[in-house]
Amino acid sequence: MARWDPDARGRLLRAAIELFAEQGYEATTTAQIAERAGLTRTTLFRLFSDKREILFQGQGALIAGATEAIHRAPAGAPADEVLTAAVTGLADVHTSEQRETGQLLVPLMASSPELQERAAFKRDAIARAIEHELFERFDDRRLAGVLADIGVRSYYAGYASWIASPDDLPLTPLVHQELAEHTAALRHVFAG
Amino acid sequence: MARWDPDARGRLLRAAIELFAEQGYEATTTAQIAERAGLTRTTLFRLFSDKREILFQGQGALIAGATEAIHRAPAGAPADEVLTAAVTGLADVHTSEQRETGQLLVPLMASSPELQERAAFKRDAIARAIEHELFERFDDRRLAGVLADIGVRSYYAGYASWIASPDDLPLTPLVHQELAEHTAALRHVFAG
Repeated sequence: MARWDPDARGRLLRAAIELFAEQGYEATTTAQIAERAGLTRTTLFRLFSDKREILFQGQGALIAGATEAIHRAPAGAPADEVLTAAVTGLADVHTSEQRETGQLLVPLMASSPELQERAAFKRDAIARAIEHELFERFDDRRLAGVLADIGVRSYYAGYASWIASPDDLPLTPLVHQELAEHTAALRHVFAG
Repeated sequence: MARWDPDARGRLLRAAIELFAEQGYEATTTAQIAERAGLTRTTLFRLFSDKREILFQGQGALIAGATEAIHRAPAGAPADEVLTAAVTGLADVHTSEQRETGQLLVPLMASSPELQERAAFKRDAIARAIEHELFERFDDRRLAGVLADIGVRSYYAGYASWIASPDDLPLTPLVHQELAEHTAALRHVFAG
């Protein structure tokens, strides 16, 4: 049963977060995580290369969400509209249950340089994927790069507000608001 | 003598790059790097926590270059001028000899996910340091963030041109040109 459990990834995530919080990231083994999740280590290693990757399992879905949203944007859409589509694609990947997971992850990430490094790599991977798609569409590597940075920064800022808020607000409008405010800040500096 | 060698860091860097190129990053040990540099492993570990850090020894100087340049910018200087100071601070850290080192590092970085991850963390650390300084000065976290991203992206793009060029051009004008072109791309999208 365990082997084919459709939510093995989610169970491993919950088990890892619990154990990392209880006894520390360094001290927790893959065997303990698998046991807590009611799965075998073989199953864990079929899904993740190491304990760290369990926490970053969302990276692929985020990249897919953003790049598919860019693909779906109408031909001829202006760059700011395509960027809005990309950040919407990132935000829409999240379910409201992930808000609680995010709240647990914040102190965990702060506790480990290894996790912070992996988090920086995740952010970079998302930015590079968006940059690649925007370059394919607009054929301007600098435009693609700066827009990807603004989009990723707006997404992370909106996400931070989302998990910090005591209310269960939807994520997408928070990300849209951050995008509007980040571009307004830029416009103020580079107008004219 | 080795213990007090003023260029122990530089010798370890050259030894590490040589050995990583000859036999691969994974297969190279700290003992081999120390031996090639004519130093002891104790000296190596007094300077660096592991073999990977030898390659990223420039991070601190880059952060210091950028943040000190922001500090030195005149009070009341507009944001785009302070950003130019920051990227100038990054570029001015480099000596022309580092161009050759950079050329050797490109294929090395591409060979190892562990090095790519550390490189993403370095870029993120530089961006966060600039963001922090810009926030201190302008008291606007969004402005600070987007400007830091543009500055870091312009610096990396200028650096890439620098090491890719067959001519020994100075780095700073290349970075300034990238900054001008990245802001022009943005202005085009967000004008009005």
